[in-house]
Amino acid sequence: MGARRERRDDEVEQGTVVTPSAEFPPLDPAERAALGRIGERWRPQDGDGALPVDPTLGRSGRRPAPSRFGRLAPFDLFTVAQPDELVATEPATVPASRWGRARTRLRRAVLGPPLSSAAVLYERMRKLVALPVLSSDLLSSVAYGPEAMLAVLVLAGGAALGLALPLAAGLVVLMVAVGASYRQTIQAYPHGAGSYVVAGDNLGPLAGLAAAAGLMVDYVLTVAVSVAAGVHAVTSALPGLAPATVPLGLLVIAVLLAGNLRGVRSAGNLFVLPTYAFLVAVLAVLLVGYARAAGRGFAPVPPPAVPATEGLGLLLVLRAFSSGAVSMTGIEAVSNAVPAFRPTEWRNARITLGWMVALLVLLFAGLTLLIRLDGLVPVPGETLLSQLGRVTFPTGPWYALLQVATTLILLLAANTAFNGFPRLLFFMARAGHAPRRFLHMGDRLAFGNGMVALAATAALVFTVFGGHTAALIPLYAVGVFLAFTLSQTGMVVHWRRRRGPGWRRKLLFNAVGATLSGLVLLTAAGSKFAEGAWVVVLAVPLLVLLFRRIHRHYTTLHRALALHPPTPPGPAGSAEGEELPQEVRHLVVVPVARLNRASLRALAYAASLGQPTLAVHLAPEDAEADRFREQWRAWGDHLRLETIVSPYRAVIGPLAHYLEALHGSRPELTLTVIVPEVVLRRPWHRPLHSRAEQRLRAALRALPGVVVTSVPVHIGE
Amino acid sequence: MGARRERRDDEVEQGTVVTPSAEFPPLDPAERAALGRIGERWRPQDGDGALPVDPTLGRSGRRPAPSRFGRLAPFDLFTVAQPDELVATEPATVPASRWGRARTRLRRAVLGPPLSSAAVLYERMRKLVALPVLSSDLLSSVAYGPEAMLAVLVLAGGAALGLALPLAAGLVVLMVAVGASYRQTIQAYPHGAGSYVVAGDNLGPLAGLAAAAGLMVDYVLTVAVSVAAGVHAVTSALPGLAPATVPLGLLVIAVLLAGNLRGVRSAGNLFVLPTYAFLVAVLAVLLVGYARAAGRGFAPVPPPAVPATEGLGLLLVLRAFSSGAVSMTGIEAVSNAVPAFRPTEWRNARITLGWMVALLVLLFAGLTLLIRLDGLVPVPGETLLSQLGRVTFPTGPWYALLQVATTLILLLAANTAFNGFPRLLFFMARAGHAPRRFLHMGDRLAFGNGMVALAATAALVFTVFGGHTAALIPLYAVGVFLAFTLSQTGMVVHWRRRRGPGWRRKLLFNAVGATLSGLVLLTAAGSKFAEGAWVVVLAVPLLVLLFRRIHRHYTTLHRALALHPPTPPGPAGSAEGEELPQEVRHLVVVPVARLNRASLRALAYAASLGQPTLAVHLAPEDAEADRFREQWRAWGDHLRLETIVSPYRAVIGPLAHYLEALHGSRPELTLTVIVPEVVLRRPWHRPLHSRAEQRLRAALRALPGVVVTSVPVHIGE
Repeated sequence: MGARRERRDDEVEQGTVVTPSAEFPPLDPAERAALGRIGERWRPQDGDGALPVDPTLGRSGRRPAPSRFGRLAPFDLFTVAQPDELVATEPATVPASRWGRARTRLRRAVLGPPLSSAAVLYERMRKLVALPVLSSDLLSSVAYGPEAMLAVLVLAGGAALGLALPLAAGLVVLMVAVGASYRQTIQAYPHGAGSYVVAGDNLGPLAGLAAAAGLMVDYVLTVAVSVAAGVHAVTSALPGLAPATVPLGLLVIAVLLAGNLRGVRSAGNLFVLPTYAFLVAVLAVLLVGYARAAGRGFAPVPPPAVPATEGLGLLLVLRAFSSGAVSMTGIEAVSNAVPAFRPTEWRNARITLGWMVALLVLLFAGLTLLIRLDGLVPVPGETLLSQLGRVTFPTGPWYALLQVATTLILLLAANTAFNGFPRLLFFMARAGHAPRRFLHMGDRLAFGNGMVALAATAALVFTVFGGHTAALIPLYAVGVFLAFTLSQTGMVVHWRRRRGPGWRRKLLFNAVGATLSGLVLLTAAGSKFAEGAWVVVLAVPLLVLLFRRIHRHYTTLHRALALHPPTPPGPAGSAEGEELPQEVRHLVVVPVARLNRASLRALAYAASLGQPTLAVHLAPEDAEADRFREQWRAWGDHLRLETIVSPYRAVIGPLAHYLEALHGSRPELTLTVIVPEVVLRRPWHRPLHSRAEQRLRAALRALPGVVVTSVPVHIGE
Repeated sequence: MGARRERRDDEVEQGTVVTPSAEFPPLDPAERAALGRIGERWRPQDGDGALPVDPTLGRSGRRPAPSRFGRLAPFDLFTVAQPDELVATEPATVPASRWGRARTRLRRAVLGPPLSSAAVLYERMRKLVALPVLSSDLLSSVAYGPEAMLAVLVLAGGAALGLALPLAAGLVVLMVAVGASYRQTIQAYPHGAGSYVVAGDNLGPLAGLAAAAGLMVDYVLTVAVSVAAGVHAVTSALPGLAPATVPLGLLVIAVLLAGNLRGVRSAGNLFVLPTYAFLVAVLAVLLVGYARAAGRGFAPVPPPAVPATEGLGLLLVLRAFSSGAVSMTGIEAVSNAVPAFRPTEWRNARITLGWMVALLVLLFAGLTLLIRLDGLVPVPGETLLSQLGRVTFPTGPWYALLQVATTLILLLAANTAFNGFPRLLFFMARAGHAPRRFLHMGDRLAFGNGMVALAATAALVFTVFGGHTAALIPLYAVGVFLAFTLSQTGMVVHWRRRRGPGWRRKLLFNAVGATLSGLVLLTAAGSKFAEGAWVVVLAVPLLVLLFRRIHRHYTTLHRALALHPPTPPGPAGSAEGEELPQEVRHLVVVPVARLNRASLRALAYAASLGQPTLAVHLAPEDAEADRFREQWRAWGDHLRLETIVSPYRAVIGPLAHYLEALHGSRPELTLTVIVPEVVLRRPWHRPLHSRAEQRLRAALRALPGVVVTSVPVHIGE
């Protein structure tokens, strides 16, 4: 395969490379400056600052002591890299709890051991490798594209099938035009750019989000349709499996998910095989088929009489055209992957794209014409490609090989979505348009969250539509051509702005591509609206709305948390505004229910902080309050005690209100509530205890300026 | 009703009175002494100790300031009782969150406003009031007791019914013997004592727990059987309702639960009515019935021929006898309630018990004989009492009144279990044999947790047995007679130990009662084992086991938390052993993911404590670690920073292991982990954030000596 190499910094800056550090965005210059200004005003407090431990571990003179629960403290889990840097070893990622360890062991058995960040591959592909890897999505569509077109035409009866060839010619024009258009994109974005980036750059963020929504729908449907068509290829050869279509499909999706979570990219060379096998198989079908047709002087076999169920109107023709257009899904893969080519990247990518479009035209047109010559019509239960295979190879293993290759390339196409969808979500999350969890690289260096989201959605769609390819096709074209249209329109704007050499010609190519894509988009959305396209027409704006709401939330959050240059000290300071130790004014409050080791430890902890401290006791009636005060005096009355009689026996409510009232009287104070917490070792003992600590913490969460500290006492039983 | 009065202190000490303070047990003398010794060694720390706020609120010169979320701080929710005591008003018990407020409002609409602890009633009952209140359970059993006996006999054919009168005579002897036995108990325990206390006192804790388990099963079955019989009384009069038996019964249980949660005890006088109405109605049946029988010279009406389905063996007779014995359930109510009588309490209680047993004998024997005279046999679909009513009152409203009174007294009997079951759980919880939550008096002064537990279990049993009284009867007698037997055997031991005046006579009464009860217990468990008694035979030991496990857990907990006199300072001190501020050695650790307002606030908070402080950053790769260190220096490098590179990108695991290792190097340190926490106002924003703080807290919970502090920043959007 291609040569590994280090990532280039310009690519990191251009943002086309995924890194595990994306969860830690750099500070912008203003924040950076503010940080320094804030730091200048920091005054150290009383404490001497000398640490009582060696933070690099293992260099202190002391021996590790067994911890309370009998395990050795895990010094060996870290290695020292620098005086102030440790490196966590792999065992350090395993949770300490028994349940957590078991879960981790199970996950690793299924998904493999964790991979180090250093193992991120920055690979370069030769054209002969890039072609099969990038084209599986595109080429596999010819397994269902021609059939999708003919299945609509045949609704108007056998005679309407005569329209297949003119429509196919139109689609070839479309393919060439869109292909040519994408060649411009590759040249203009040598660092690679999907529709999300191109539309967002040139048409504004809203267009970018719309393109992203279209692409996301497209990825989900790629999985659903490819799996449906792949299962259909199997059930065409083995009709007995047809009733198990949905469970089979779900199993396939689960296997794809598990494989991708495990990271099947490392098995990259395997991907070459199905694509070339499929190419060879289909070319063999074409060769043998045309040879046989030549034998009878290219006289078409008359198709069986099919009764018309709909009239042959313009709407039907448009529907057929837009159904055939699903053959073009996946054409944008190359433009996303430009940086993965060997230098000169954009030139090699363009050449690969040219080959791919040429192959697509050859297969699509060749298959459509051969189907007409052999007089085949779509029937339920068997794919047209399978029928063609049976006619072409009546004997021998060739038919079986064709079906196997078809199934494999379709699964490979579904697999590409597991690569593209999480990457798209990653870029969106980096821009704040998707939840941040999609930035996280799991321990297999895969974007697991995105993969799970894709698999879950695709499984849902697959199940709802019963795994029928034909039922899913109407939903498919809309998302794809929305992304095409926006991306190529973006290129038109790009050329108008940039005006490099030959910009008029380039603009023309993109304008033609955009216009044709737009027409297909309108055709698909309009003519197939009732058949299911409405789902996508509805989903895309809803997704865009969701992305914007998410972005707004993150923007608010970022603004609230951003560093600002320090303001001149104002009146009394506001709650939670402190950024300097000398600004923090403390009040420590310890709720005490009864005097025992847990509460005395909490009181000792509180007092050891050397800050003003108040103990609070809630009593259900006066008699109990008196008794507690008497105990308090017996202890020595070392801290100020306030008793609250709660005659209605509620504890959490009055305590929370009291703390709020206390804080309200001096809002600039930071109230530290120190809660003694008894930690039980056995989960089944928990029902024997009130969850007072947790309920108190939940009630105090909403109060600004209130810090909650849990002082645990562990019960070893 | 009875006169209210203050509780007497000797009753509190004797433990027969329930108080809201039971959740706060007093310190035992050893702990009390240890408390003082610990307190003597307390050394105040640096802080001056003067509080920056007025803990009694509202007397500080400052005006209340609006809190961050726009509500006024709730100063008005508290009133000042003493210089160091506030009293929470009723609004202070309402949670501050919107959802909590709505929930509280709904609960109060159904259950009524909260009641103050001062409203606990310590009531005294006159005998004429006590009789109906305490006897509803006992007397209502005659509505199904005779039928339960006859229903078994009739299995051996109509002729076997001739055994009814000898069996009834035997049961009358049993009733008198058990009644006489309980009279001894009342005298010996003038503060009142159920089987749990008597058996536990005299036969050891295990016997007490067994009696408690029997009583608990009994209470559950009282509800299930009484509701089933009550619904049966209704469906006997209105057969159309028969198919709705289970929903009707569940509705009745729900209404009973709601009524008891609301606290129907305040409507005490209402309870007098159904009992007297039932008494009058049954006495009227007997009077009219025997008058009519006298008219025909007491010639019995020949019963209809019933084919035998089982042979008439000893087992069947024993089954019939033990089924009839369910008429005695509820006889122990008086001995539980002795303190509720007017002085001289035990004398009045004994007299009431005498009346009750006399009435029981009269009703039971009278009904059984009349049923024989009228030639009635049990049929499915209509109760015997209903048949008797129809025969006795062929016209007029009397039949309807009988059924209404029967239904009401049965519901009242079910209701008594809602009183007894939670009280039993309360006493068990106070002794550490049941979860502590059963000590808690809800805001309506009711033991809501116990009531819910009873209603849920009874509803389950009722549903499983389809609401058939006959199916539930076999389970009933075992629990009751287990408690009877243990309690009376306990009395035998009691007299042997005490040997007061006339102890031999008293012992004899109890011995006879115990022997007869024990025989019935064995009969019931043996003869009805297969019919359902096995459930109880299995449940009682399992419950005892559960109670013991619970007790063991609380004992371990108490021992772990109990105060001990200070030991001479040993080597280095152990984790979590600190009870004095000067013993606490601090290390503060602040995990910092990125530098923003939230983390700077956490760092400032940490530094303001003036203790040795270490900041920790986890980086997924070296490049990010370098970038973060560079930011740290730009800030001013005020605190020691340790960077941990986590090449497998896990965060929580390595951090927890690192803190454990750090702590392991100096186990005597108290590690305070200060976690910046962003608090979101809208719950639907939470999916947009990792729950890193919560996950870290969960991972650190298991580590001894680690204190977790959440420093919140509230995002106001």
